[in-house]
This record gives sequence, structure tokens and C-alpha cells, in this order.
Amino acid sequence: MLTVHSPAHHLHHGVELKDGTVKPSFESPDRADTVLARVRASGLGPVAEAIAQPREALTDVHAPRYVDFLETAWAQWTATGRQHDALPLVWPVRGLPVTDEPQHIDGKLGFYAMDAGAPIGAGTWAAVRASADVALTALDALLDAPAGTGTGARGSFALCRPPGHHAARAYAGGYCYLNNAAIAAQRAVRRGARRVAVLDVDFHHGNGTQDIFYERADVLFASLHGDPARCYPYFAGQAGETGAGAGLGFNANYPLPWGTDWAAYVPVLDEALRRIRAHGTELLVVSLGVDTFEGDPISHFRLRSEDFLRLGERIAAAGLPTLFVMEGGYMVDEIGLNAVNTLLGFEGRG
Amino acid sequence: MLTVHSPAHHLHHGVELKDGTVKPSFESPDRADTVLARVRASGLGPVAEAIAQPREALTDVHAPRYVDFLETAWAQWTATGRQHDALPLVWPVRGLPVTDEPQHIDGKLGFYAMDAGAPIGAGTWAAVRASADVALTALDALLDAPAGTGTGARGSFALCRPPGHHAARAYAGGYCYLNNAAIAAQRAVRRGARRVAVLDVDFHHGNGTQDIFYERADVLFASLHGDPARCYPYFAGQAGETGAGAGLGFNANYPLPWGTDWAAYVPVLDEALRRIRAHGTELLVVSLGVDTFEGDPISHFRLRSEDFLRLGERIAAAGLPTLFVMEGGYMVDEIGLNAVNTLLGFEGRG
Repeated sequence: MLTVHSPAHHLHHGVELKDGTVKPSFESPDRADTVLARVRASGLGPVAEAIAQPREALTDVHAPRYVDFLETAWAQWTATGRQHDALPLVWPVRGLPVTDEPQHIDGKLGFYAMDAGAPIGAGTWAAVRASADVALTALDALLDAPAGTGTGARGSFALCRPPGHHAARAYAGGYCYLNNAAIAAQRAVRRGARRVAVLDVDFHHGNGTQDIFYERADVLFASLHGDPARCYPYFAGQAGETGAGAGLGFNANYPLPWGTDWAAYVPVLDEALRRIRAHGTELLVVSLGVDTFEGDPISHFRLRSEDFLRLGERIAAAGLPTLFVMEGGYMVDEIGLNAVNTLLGFEGRG
Repeated sequence: MLTVHSPAHHLHHGVELKDGTVKPSFESPDRADTVLARVRASGLGPVAEAIAQPREALTDVHAPRYVDFLETAWAQWTATGRQHDALPLVWPVRGLPVTDEPQHIDGKLGFYAMDAGAPIGAGTWAAVRASADVALTALDALLDAPAGTGTGARGSFALCRPPGHHAARAYAGGYCYLNNAAIAAQRAVRRGARRVAVLDVDFHHGNGTQDIFYERADVLFASLHGDPARCYPYFAGQAGETGAGAGLGFNANYPLPWGTDWAAYVPVLDEALRRIRAHGTELLVVSLGVDTFEGDPISHFRLRSEDFLRLGERIAAAGLPTLFVMEGGYMVDEIGLNAVNTLLGFEGRG
């Protein structure tokens, strides 16, 4: 399987408000480096750098003024004399009238965010744009590859960093800025796929991907995640969120309790994959978070490293061309092992 | 004029996310101590401690489960093993489905907040409840005082801390937890006032007071503040927010540009006071923030200390029984001078 990456992710290294102080983010450059090293060591397949993509691919799923904001926020922030990472200080919560985008950068930061977990530094824009390039390059490679023979379960791996699945049409959050999985899914639609599905196996609900496709029937979103009653992002991910308008019935959330292990996880995964097949899916995008691992420092499932081999096998059994897009996973030592195990399992090498 | 205070405010000393780090809040215990010292030094009048009030006065303007949250949040937070001030980490911004209050304290903290500026520590509940007691005690004293003769412009001063005007029916923010001004205005209604007005002269828009009375015709809310396009809280305070339902026409916002001085301020103040008299107001509550002062570290108007004498005089000219409720003001040395100048001006001693 081809792996696509970009060294530009090193330009972004965030901070977060955690344990009563601001400290380096769990979402660190080491994460992608560790996964890439494991890809190479495992002999998964060729590795390529991302190809720069047109900006239109971003605004095809994100609000244009949100993309403008991401591109210009650091310049606006430093113009006020500040040099540390930009973070919002107030958010447009329910009940606030929010008539329009504020003019001041401190207002814009909150207008386009859901938390204080997506800081903007000098290199953030370059890194997040490169991350979207990674997803698009890997998607194109998958679509352009010869169909071959066999099950149809060909795959490619977009080693995206920063991750994307918390980024909605017009806000950042949870270490995410541009929604790499959604951007890739949308390109698949533009390139002719009539039915696409995004399967999100990150521990945290992919509220951003849900937001982007909530009123669309052509892109099914299915997510297994920690129950939002007790897990970040708290305000999305309930089973009752099933889509709206033309998209009603095309959003499938599977919230699961703290402590879920593989035995409890697998029947729900199989149900999600059944829905994906029933959708008539022609291309599958997997938001691959491996923070479902039992040792993850900020998550609460109990998958073991060998379970990720089985995860890959079950996804392969759907028999679909599959783009894996890297999302979360925060125990640096094991993130490479668990991500690559999923891919090896998909390829029948588990 | 009577001043009511409570030493319990010392139980609360917050932190805030500012300049890329978490540091002691601008909203410090020194603030109220400085104002009280100035009250005593100026001979403004008697000083009394607050009388404990029934909890029902709080839930008469705030959602009962929000009050429950404020009361129990510290216990829920420390039950997870944490001892530093509790802050939210994600907020229910527009677009998130937010079906219900999360079960986990980290979710509840965001569910009931609009920012990371209202930390909850061990003494926060006791302090915020005492702050509401201060407002209610001062209101009762005003209503119970003999009417006397003259203009009717009798006053009392609730030296509240923490402040209240950013606290809405069901969320905290901007150093505020319970909306002291709204709680007092509501008691005035319960005690028979048919028409009440809240005049908010804090630099920042009183989004919480607006939220509480937005659909009511009996309590007019009028606010002069920094234009939210460029000033905190950014997502409320536009002139177009005029009330809803039965309250349509009973919410008056006067956003003003950075750098507004007394000459530019006073015609807008007079217009707000004209609206308040036209309302048939029987009792006036003034949300008294003095962060309109030219030296305030986090605000952008240019009022000088002598202007606050004139502010008090003009409020007195409305000829209404008036409860002053302390809100913001963050330059500790001058906050006492400017607050007491307003009160002295009101009493014709400027």
C-alpha cells in the first residue's frame, strides 16, 4: 500500500490548555514521525511525498471565509504585537446572537473554533494545507491505480498531520483545522463516485465530518466513538443524530462506553460496515485514529495492538477501495505500531 | 448612600488564559477591597454586610440545573483527582447538536460556559452566592427606605464580587457566574415594581443580562459598550438586538468605537436614560463597570476619573430609585476612585 506524507507537518507544534496550564500539545510532530518510521520498517509499501493541490479542494467542503481566516490568522494575530500561539478566549455558544464574524482577530479566533485545542502558530497554515495535500494525493493515487483483480479492497494511506475530523465546515477544534477525510471524500465525489462513505474509528466523535456531510445523501458518515455524554467533544456524537434534509438517514453514530474492548467493539464495527455496504459505497475513507488503544493517555477504550490487525482485516472484508486518513492517537511509542497494524491487517498480512 | 458588601468574595480568586499562559485573573480580590476602602474614606455613607438570601432568588432568573452545577462543580471536579481551578476545554458552539447536558464534569463545564474566564475553585460557589446576597440586600434596603422628599433619586450600592453581567440564564463567562443585577431586578419585580430597567455602563456588553430579559417587556435592558465587532464578548451587543417575543423593543444596545471619550459618550448615555424614563421605569439597576476608564488594562474607552462624577449626576437626573451593582474595572488603583466618584456624583456631591 502506498503511504503519502509531508515533512511540512513539522512546521506546526501546538500548545493546549490542560491540567490548569498551557503546555505542549499531545498532538506533537513525533506522532507522524513515529508512524512514518513504522511504515518504512514494516515494508508496508512505497512512500511518497504529497503533491501540492489547488485551494479549491479546501473551499469545496469548508466555508471560503473560514479558509481565509486560517490562512491569515497568524498575520492578524502578530499585527497586534503577540508572538505566542494564537488561541480564542470566548466562543459563540448557543444563546449568543452571533450576528456576524467579528472584525478583531480575538473575536475571529472564537468565531471559527469550538475549543482552545487548535492553536495557530507561525507554521500552522503551511502544515494544515500540506496535510490536506497528503489526503488528496493519496486519494488520487488510489483512484488512478489499476483496478487489478481480487476483492477490490485496494488501499492507500494518507499520513496526515495535523488531523482533521473535528474540523467542521467553519470551525477548528480538537487539534484539527482542515478536514482531510472530508476533503478527500469530496474529491472522490467530484471525480465521479456516486456513493462514498467515511468510517471514523478514532476514539473521539468526528463532529467535523458529520457537520460537513450532515445534509447530504451521497456521503455516508459512520462513527464508532466514546459516548459524548462522558467523552470529548461532548456536544456531538449521539445516536439520535441521523442526518437532516436530504441527508436524513445518512449519518450513523455508534457511541460506546468507557472501557470498550475488542470483543464489545467488533459487533458494532460490523454493523457500521454493513451500513456502508448497504449504502452502495464505491469508495471508503477511513478516519484512522488509534487512540482506541488501551494505553492512550486521553482516551478510554481498551483495544490492544493485535486488535488493530483484526480491524484492518474487517475493513478489507467490505471489499472497497479504501483511503486511510490518519487522525488521532497520542501514545507516541505505540501509535506507529497500531496504525501500521491496521494497514497490514487490511492487506492480509496480519 | 448605603454600601453593602461581603468578605466572602475573598474565597474566590480565579485564573485566566491570557497571553499564551494561565495566570491570576484580572478579576482579583484587591478590586473589591480597593472599592470598599474608598467608600469608607469618602464618607459615602453607612456600610453593611450582606444578609443571606434564599436560593429561590437565584433560580428565579437562572436555570435550576445551572445553579446546581455551580454549587456542585468543584466537588465533581476534585472527584476526578484534580485540585487546580476547573476550566472548560470545549464549548457548545453554533452548529454542534448539543442534545443534552453531558454527564462528565469536563463536558458540563463547557455546557455551562461561554469562555475560559470563569474558573471554578474551592471557594467560588460561596463567593458567588454571597455576591448575589450583596445585590439582594442592597436592593431590599433601597426598597425599604422611606421615600423621603426631593427628586426620588435615592440610591444604594451593591459592592458585588465576582461581577455578574456576563452570566446568562444558563452559562458563566467573563468572570461572572450569577447575574447579580438581574437577580436584583427580578426581586424588584417580585416585590411589585411593574417596570424595571437595567442600565449597563460597563465597557463590555452585558450579554448575560440581555439573555435573561430578552423576551420580557417588564425589564428594559440598555447597554453602552465597546462595539462587539472589536470587543469582548464579540458575539452579542449589536444594535440590531432589540429583544424578541413580548420583549421586542425592550433591549437597547449602544455599541461605541474604541477610544470613545466622555464627549462622545454622554449623548448616547442621555439617549439611553431617555429610553429608560420613557419605559415608565419605577426602579433602576445600574450595572456599574468602571472599565470605561482611560487606563483600564483590558478595555478601550477614554473616560477620566472626573467623568465618573458626571456619570453619576446624569443617572441621578433620571429621578429614579437606583441600585448600583458593581461589575468590571481592572486597574486596581483607580477602580475605587472611579466607582465612588459615580456614587458621589449621583448624590450631588461631585
